[in-house]
Amino acid sequence: MASEYVSLQNIKFLLHDVHRVEDLMQYPLYADYDGDSIDMIIDTLKELADEYLFPYLEECDRFEVQYENGKVKVHPQILKVMQMMGENGWIGAPYPVEVGGMQLPHMVAILNEYIFAAANNNLNGYPSLTMGAAGLIISFGNEELIETYLEKMLTGKWQGTMALTEPQAGSSLSDITTIAVPTYAGHYQIKGTKTFISAGDYEGIENVVHLTLAKIEGAPAGAKGISLFVVPKSRVGADGKLQPNGVATAGIFHKLGQRGYVTTQLALGDDDNCHGYLVGEPHHGLAYMFQMMNASRISVGSHGAGIASAAYHASLEFARERTQGRRWNDRDLTLPQTEIVNHPDIRRMLFMQKAIAEGGLSLVLQCTRYEDLHAVSDGEEKEKYYLLLELLTPLVKTFPADAGIQSVSHGLQVLGGSGFCEDYPLEQYYRDIRIMSIYEGTTGMQSLDLLGRKVQLNKGLAFKLFLGEMQQTMAEAADMPELQKYAGQLKSEVEKLVGVTKHLGKIAATGDIELFLADATPYQQMFSLVAIAWQWLKQGITANKVLQAQEKQGDDLKFYQSKLHTLKFFYVYELPKTEALAAAITSGENLTVLKDDDLLI
Amino acid sequence: MASEYVSLQNIKFLLHDVHRVEDLMQYPLYADYDGDSIDMIIDTLKELADEYLFPYLEECDRFEVQYENGKVKVHPQILKVMQMMGENGWIGAPYPVEVGGMQLPHMVAILNEYIFAAANNNLNGYPSLTMGAAGLIISFGNEELIETYLEKMLTGKWQGTMALTEPQAGSSLSDITTIAVPTYAGHYQIKGTKTFISAGDYEGIENVVHLTLAKIEGAPAGAKGISLFVVPKSRVGADGKLQPNGVATAGIFHKLGQRGYVTTQLALGDDDNCHGYLVGEPHHGLAYMFQMMNASRISVGSHGAGIASAAYHASLEFARERTQGRRWNDRDLTLPQTEIVNHPDIRRMLFMQKAIAEGGLSLVLQCTRYEDLHAVSDGEEKEKYYLLLELLTPLVKTFPADAGIQSVSHGLQVLGGSGFCEDYPLEQYYRDIRIMSIYEGTTGMQSLDLLGRKVQLNKGLAFKLFLGEMQQTMAEAADMPELQKYAGQLKSEVEKLVGVTKHLGKIAATGDIELFLADATPYQQMFSLVAIAWQWLKQGITANKVLQAQEKQGDDLKFYQSKLHTLKFFYVYELPKTEALAAAITSGENLTVLKDDDLLI
Repeated sequence: MASEYVSLQNIKFLLHDVHRVEDLMQYPLYADYDGDSIDMIIDTLKELADEYLFPYLEECDRFEVQYENGKVKVHPQILKVMQMMGENGWIGAPYPVEVGGMQLPHMVAILNEYIFAAANNNLNGYPSLTMGAAGLIISFGNEELIETYLEKMLTGKWQGTMALTEPQAGSSLSDITTIAVPTYAGHYQIKGTKTFISAGDYEGIENVVHLTLAKIEGAPAGAKGISLFVVPKSRVGADGKLQPNGVATAGIFHKLGQRGYVTTQLALGDDDNCHGYLVGEPHHGLAYMFQMMNASRISVGSHGAGIASAAYHASLEFARERTQGRRWNDRDLTLPQTEIVNHPDIRRMLFMQKAIAEGGLSLVLQCTRYEDLHAVSDGEEKEKYYLLLELLTPLVKTFPADAGIQSVSHGLQVLGGSGFCEDYPLEQYYRDIRIMSIYEGTTGMQSLDLLGRKVQLNKGLAFKLFLGEMQQTMAEAADMPELQKYAGQLKSEVEKLVGVTKHLGKIAATGDIELFLADATPYQQMFSLVAIAWQWLKQGITANKVLQAQEKQGDDLKFYQSKLHTLKFFYVYELPKTEALAAAITSGENLTVLKDDDLLI
Repeated sequence: MASEYVSLQNIKFLLHDVHRVEDLMQYPLYADYDGDSIDMIIDTLKELADEYLFPYLEECDRFEVQYENGKVKVHPQILKVMQMMGENGWIGAPYPVEVGGMQLPHMVAILNEYIFAAANNNLNGYPSLTMGAAGLIISFGNEELIETYLEKMLTGKWQGTMALTEPQAGSSLSDITTIAVPTYAGHYQIKGTKTFISAGDYEGIENVVHLTLAKIEGAPAGAKGISLFVVPKSRVGADGKLQPNGVATAGIFHKLGQRGYVTTQLALGDDDNCHGYLVGEPHHGLAYMFQMMNASRISVGSHGAGIASAAYHASLEFARERTQGRRWNDRDLTLPQTEIVNHPDIRRMLFMQKAIAEGGLSLVLQCTRYEDLHAVSDGEEKEKYYLLLELLTPLVKTFPADAGIQSVSHGLQVLGGSGFCEDYPLEQYYRDIRIMSIYEGTTGMQSLDLLGRKVQLNKGLAFKLFLGEMQQTMAEAADMPELQKYAGQLKSEVEKLVGVTKHLGKIAATGDIELFLADATPYQQMFSLVAIAWQWLKQGITANKVLQAQEKQGDDLKFYQSKLHTLKFFYVYELPKTEALAAAITSGENLTVLKDDDLLI
């Protein structure tokens, strides 16, 4: 078992020095916090993760969720985590104090997600989903819903979920068929099947509150006819007591990873007695749900970055202990073998892991910073941060997932045969992280969102603002002799991205949308590499300032030197991958759009 | 469950049309075979795989190998497969008729490995290892060893293994410490620990024959002191009966994948009564073992290509059945949803899978063709094929493994959430194939072998011969209007590879071997992409000839069109990846060689 999974020094460097969380404290919304109190919160989160989550990582996997006679049995630690999270207020971390939240900056709240996912990604989803579901009720629920559900959820007594997917409708939510029939009593009768519902049911939890998409009888076709309902497993009866609400768990899924995190299939209203309570206005459900989906997308990114971090620390620890072979310039066989961390190929894999994990977390904090600035600003400023966040959301969801999978795979490879065995956590991380490219919209869907919607948002204003943000970073780096070269490299990469974007814009202008979007994923990959290069340049600027100030020594010095070295690594080994992506996108060969025959044989 | 795992049409196309197995029939060694008899063999292999292997894929995984009180319990199908393989002569497929083999061309014998691994990679390793171990006895064993072991192994009654790795010595075999003490009786007393031994022990098998590396007492240090021994689990006593030979199974490994393929740790001679029988001359063990290792490396490549093929067929089948969303140019929501195989992003992933799986198999057949030509030729010709095979072995081991992992990951992604669940085989393929980058020398070790040894073999003659082979293919393609463009692209890629090789040669000339080899893996990746592009051009030439002849219709026509389309896909989406690799290798930044501090934090 590895002994570490995140670096608090790195978290604090990114939060305070690179992404300047202190900027937010000047606004009344976050005025109750300061740098010290935030550090205390981070330290507490790490202690809680050390105690409640990390020790159970392997157990949660081995003690796979069980399903028998409609009941779901999970690891007992899940209930303890829900209770701890509820009692400590973490489920309401980003929400206003007046509804029972902590009113924490999103930048800090997301670190809860990150640290907990790094510690044990089989446990952190339960409170995380409850937080998101509660958020929908806070934002769009009426007083009765808030009264009935909120406190129970924020205290971790009731689980929250998002119930969107149906067997025939996953990526294409327009095609859901769960039906909601209004009743004179004010509630709706819900009937349908929901699948792939995370945390959808488990023994020991008092209640499960499903934030459910359904169509009201007679609603318009497609996304415009989708409404949002609260559909609890048990409803509160007239006597104030809980009674069954026609939500049956039809089965669970056995999965590659996250075996301790239950994924259910739910049958709603098989007994024609399943009450649903409308959230907000009819037919606006998908728009409401996007609040939770967008938050969840950033969460998934933070989970990917978290698992990648845990894998990095585990493989670094192994590489420092395991000896094998000798360095090539000194191959005296009578010498003892060297630690494998000294071999260039191992170092290449470790730096790649570090570049992905820390670059990914930096982008997560960049996005949540925009979220916070959006919350505290007005007018044009507010719009600016909204657009930047919208543009970066598909990237922050996708890069830490996709690159994270590669990164964990490198981590497994560092361990050689041991990486393939259950004696070390790498094989579990490898299984667990794989879902991150699928959750909350697959990589393909995120890429369509990026190219088909976000890049064109407000006539391309979002994209322009993003270029402006990068421009600012490049200008600062260009003034530093140590970073000039990398600022220049990023500049050409940005130009390449702009060129490819224009190329695609011309295709869009022809009206052939299928061709325009055909290479959305390579485009997203290219965009992501540029965005992460930007984040590394930001980190480099901060680290370089510290190094130039010559105030640090020893291990502290090493931390900043390591940052600069990893920046270089990313620019040498990862960033140039844009070349092949751009070549494919602009090839004009049009090889993936279906013509007469699918040509797959 | 998917219904297909390989394409017989593709196998026969590659074997007959692209790699012209018929060329071999003119030589006495293979004169007993002709095209028809080889097709019958292929068809039989597929039928055997359909009956004995494929139906047990999931079971072998779920019924994980068990270890209790020194005994190993495996799925009963393993014994049936060993028996079937033995009875049908497959374990001796590539060996001479006079020792009980089938004297099959390696090109055909490897298809046994490929088809069986595609059908069920948890089962095929048992006979495959036995074949390799028997091969060592045939090549280097004395009459007594042949007499005692060969028939039992070739008939599948006794399992064979390779016992190299020790807890302290995996990649660095020089550091093994298993000791062999000569006795007056002629055998050696063996003592040591061997780990990660595949198929090392299981209930129901009569005997297990470990081809074991050990050092004879007083042997020189390092690889020059390694000898090869037959160390059976049970030795044949004076009475001709089997008796225990001091080989204890100390434990098994629980693994990410191949859970039905047992991996053991063996304690040899804890009772000071473990007989080992020397194979060949003392201190030549590692050289002998390289025969089995090289064969195993090609096998591993074929297994990687096989699993990638199975995953491709499973995800293609899913994509043809699953409907979701609508095509972008026709988004009428009242229309039924379209099959996802019609979406460009899904098609991109499927073509990538096909390009990797079929490109990988083509390289496997190229290598085994060299092996066969080496076997039937003399003098300079023989040396030529030896050098080509040596050069390509690290590639054929690595590419189908590494790119195969990516390819299976794409396959899993095609299925979305279902890909993550045990209801479909993708998640198992994803786990199973991961070991291929570790078996028989990790990717890092193969890359060191390629750059540090093979490229320089005979003063670079191997590399020159390889360039000549590609030159021949490019010249042929350049004469075809349909392929000119790709011949030109490959030409620039080859020039780039030569340039990078020269760049590295200059570093080698400085004597800084660590720096020279630091980027061996990116170099190998670049080299592999070029080699696979060459294989696709070869396939393209053959397919194009058929299309130009205008003799095929319908599905047959589609097969060849699909080949050309996939060639283009590889050249547009995969081959340009060399650019980033070349940039990293020639960057001159020297970021992975350890200096004073490891800078990993």
